[in-house]
Amino acid sequence: MAEDVVRIFDTTMRDGEQAARINLNTGEKVQIAHALERLNVDIIEAGFPASSKGDFDAVASVAAEVRTPIVAGLARTRESDITAAGEALRGAARARIHTFIATSPIHMEYKLKLSPDGVLKEVENGVKLARSITPDVEFSAEDASRSDMDFLIEVFSLAIESGATTCNIPDTVGYAMPHEFEKFCAAVIAGVNKPGVIWSVHCHNDLGLAVANSLAAVRAGARQVECTINGLGERAGNASMEETVMSLRTRKDHFGADTAIDTRKFFATSKLVSSLTGVPVQPNKAIVGINAFAHEAGIHQHGMLCNRATYEIMTPESVGAPGTDLHLGKHSGRHAFNERVEQLGYRLSAEQGMSAFEYFKELCDKKKDVSDGDIEAFLLDRVLHLTPEGCYELKDYAVTVGSGGKPTASVTLAHDGLETTEAAYGNGPVDAAYKAILKILPFSPELAEFRIRATSEFADALGEAHVILRYKEIKAQGRGASTDIIEATVRAYVEAVNRLYSVAAAREMAI
Amino acid sequence: MAEDVVRIFDTTMRDGEQAARINLNTGEKVQIAHALERLNVDIIEAGFPASSKGDFDAVASVAAEVRTPIVAGLARTRESDITAAGEALRGAARARIHTFIATSPIHMEYKLKLSPDGVLKEVENGVKLARSITPDVEFSAEDASRSDMDFLIEVFSLAIESGATTCNIPDTVGYAMPHEFEKFCAAVIAGVNKPGVIWSVHCHNDLGLAVANSLAAVRAGARQVECTINGLGERAGNASMEETVMSLRTRKDHFGADTAIDTRKFFATSKLVSSLTGVPVQPNKAIVGINAFAHEAGIHQHGMLCNRATYEIMTPESVGAPGTDLHLGKHSGRHAFNERVEQLGYRLSAEQGMSAFEYFKELCDKKKDVSDGDIEAFLLDRVLHLTPEGCYELKDYAVTVGSGGKPTASVTLAHDGLETTEAAYGNGPVDAAYKAILKILPFSPELAEFRIRATSEFADALGEAHVILRYKEIKAQGRGASTDIIEATVRAYVEAVNRLYSVAAAREMAI
Repeated sequence: MAEDVVRIFDTTMRDGEQAARINLNTGEKVQIAHALERLNVDIIEAGFPASSKGDFDAVASVAAEVRTPIVAGLARTRESDITAAGEALRGAARARIHTFIATSPIHMEYKLKLSPDGVLKEVENGVKLARSITPDVEFSAEDASRSDMDFLIEVFSLAIESGATTCNIPDTVGYAMPHEFEKFCAAVIAGVNKPGVIWSVHCHNDLGLAVANSLAAVRAGARQVECTINGLGERAGNASMEETVMSLRTRKDHFGADTAIDTRKFFATSKLVSSLTGVPVQPNKAIVGINAFAHEAGIHQHGMLCNRATYEIMTPESVGAPGTDLHLGKHSGRHAFNERVEQLGYRLSAEQGMSAFEYFKELCDKKKDVSDGDIEAFLLDRVLHLTPEGCYELKDYAVTVGSGGKPTASVTLAHDGLETTEAAYGNGPVDAAYKAILKILPFSPELAEFRIRATSEFADALGEAHVILRYKEIKAQGRGASTDIIEATVRAYVEAVNRLYSVAAAREMAI
Repeated sequence: MAEDVVRIFDTTMRDGEQAARINLNTGEKVQIAHALERLNVDIIEAGFPASSKGDFDAVASVAAEVRTPIVAGLARTRESDITAAGEALRGAARARIHTFIATSPIHMEYKLKLSPDGVLKEVENGVKLARSITPDVEFSAEDASRSDMDFLIEVFSLAIESGATTCNIPDTVGYAMPHEFEKFCAAVIAGVNKPGVIWSVHCHNDLGLAVANSLAAVRAGARQVECTINGLGERAGNASMEETVMSLRTRKDHFGADTAIDTRKFFATSKLVSSLTGVPVQPNKAIVGINAFAHEAGIHQHGMLCNRATYEIMTPESVGAPGTDLHLGKHSGRHAFNERVEQLGYRLSAEQGMSAFEYFKELCDKKKDVSDGDIEAFLLDRVLHLTPEGCYELKDYAVTVGSGGKPTASVTLAHDGLETTEAAYGNGPVDAAYKAILKILPFSPELAEFRIRATSEFADALGEAHVILRYKEIKAQGRGASTDIIEATVRAYVEAVNRLYSVAAAREMAI
């Protein structure tokens, strides 16, 4: 029965990206889009085209690349937003315009400064315009859960009459409680009472209830859930896709509904999104945390040996969590390597595949086991070139630290064919290296975020560095990976500098 | 009305610790216990005394130190477990024995290999024995949510007749859905129908629903919630205390019940637990993630400027999240410093306070701003000495890396008054340093976990390293902090080695 299908609407690249504090570039969004397509999501919200040129371009690229899922672009009800979304989605196999306006008293009065009648007018105009561009139109009533029920029913009824095919009930501020939200959604759906429309839900996690509220809405009749990989999103994030989908799958008996998601891709997709956004996943995160399937207590381990079902309601295999920590090594061939890259959710061109394998072989000479984390790190740093062609290139560096003296660093960067070397000392090796780089650069970006991590539990793991630089109103991220953590931090800094230049160029700003 | 109070039962040091993959030592548990006392939790479950000598000692120390909250020790229904718990709790102002046995068909058949009658006999004997030791006895029916309702009612009724004053309904495997769990708990409570007993709930987060299920149980009449800081716990963890408590607080209107928690201490307590266990908190974690109160989207920022309530249902101040990122510096006096240390949840002796302030002043000479993360890092590494007296002491080290040659390191350790220096090269500076240390040590521990992070977003942030070493069946963690990330990793390794020795000594094992 068609009613049994809950559509999965992914907003990792829209609501999720907002929270990562940086903009994903087009190359990164396309990688994520392909991973979502493999996961078999129904709808990919690729961005908010009117919000920036970068978002417009990213939506257009995703629309051009992805074939199976519907691609959606967000738009306020105003004309310019909707035409921008329509433009960006022109190349899509299946395009959806997702238009929204707030309907709660507090949002209408303080943010929109519109009367309820003014909001109704916006809804009618916006949805009609969107529908003239594409047959697939979603309408969202922002802050629905704090809106007046009668007004909300009026708004949704008008949206449907104006052409909306999906209606979304967001809990924008994460205020709803599952029990009341189920009743609330049921009342909206019954009050509007229009067959044929698909009801959707979009929940935030401020009180830790986004998944529970999404499931409550499914009980009330919602057949689309808006969610994100790793629960990324504004503030405490959105409903986590992996938790929502695994709840529906594991408890099909309770919901009588399921999704089309290939859950075995969850773990790899989670890692891909974490690597590209730089937002880590905590070890005790449900479904995709590294401890999610670890049984530590002696009593639990004893129970698991007797019968896995004593403590396990789903298998690690069902979400693609590596049951055993499989590592590749120097005896692994091209086939095994390519297979692993694909399992990790990456999509390489033939040329990229060749260069990745070469780098893998080099790494095998340096270290015994090459972990998934190592592979991801070098794919991002060395192979995928998701960064624009560099204006600065790292040619050389050297760092000395010890209890005997001040940490010192020298760095050589090439720029326009010219090599420049500078040296500096600092508080620690990273500080010293960054000070040396700042002596070379003609401007002084501010370090807005700095994160380092090891890609596996081994001392010769690749160290991964994630840096966000800010200059005037621009922010740009850089990543670096190396068995030498100091080199990784230097590479990340140089990549971020290059990205600052390219963002500035796109905005026609001088640096 | 007394019925309106939901008691908060913290199990961070029992169920939470299981998941951290290491044992917290007594000093660490006492720090956490004091932080929980300041938070005003009702019950602290300090460990499982029969499981190991370390856990026994930790429970005894917490029992001796904490005055206001009840201190609980976990015990199976068997006699030796219950007498061990009673012994460990002897010094407590208010002692609770928490005894449990599984009641689901799968656990009884495969794990316990007991008939339902055998389980009933265990319940009666265990609870009676516990009640003969202390007037406060909690009984848990493990895997309750997958148990037969009639049998469960029989078990709980017998437990209460035998002397249990609190009865706990665990969703051990995280299988329950909020709607059905509310009905389930209501049916158990109505079926048992004994006034005076306090009903409790203990939920796991495998499907992301631990908080929602706990709240559903409160709706059904539960007046105790078992939970952990940061949602730590087996696999995907337990219900997060901060999410559960803030849901009850923010939506008092919905639940008609509240807790006694001082929510302004949440942020600091979360950081303390994260630092001591080495388990990071993801940025989009509800309530205590660093992004939980960050409004990134332009539309949201606009709304927030018009009226904070457009996107904010609770204030950052209410959970102690630093609204602005206050940093201390060289002009900060002893008073400001001590206040900050206390705000961070640490409890220092007068002597420790002096040495902390001296180290703070030293750090101020090295870097302009000293962040909360910096303070925590050096408190743990340099001041609190939560590590037993070291057998090995780091005297000296030097590391050179660069694109020119192999990373090399030399390390000097002192042991029994004798200094030994070794040098090695490796894949990266950390690998080189660890290889040098391994040449000095008389045994070869295995690196089981390796994590590095920066304590703030500045290049001269303290780098913090967290290492877990394994030798035979022992595991030990070490932490190190320094403006030089390489020094931090070396310090962490040496600390872990020293802890391995002390764990081995406690178990009378030779290394």
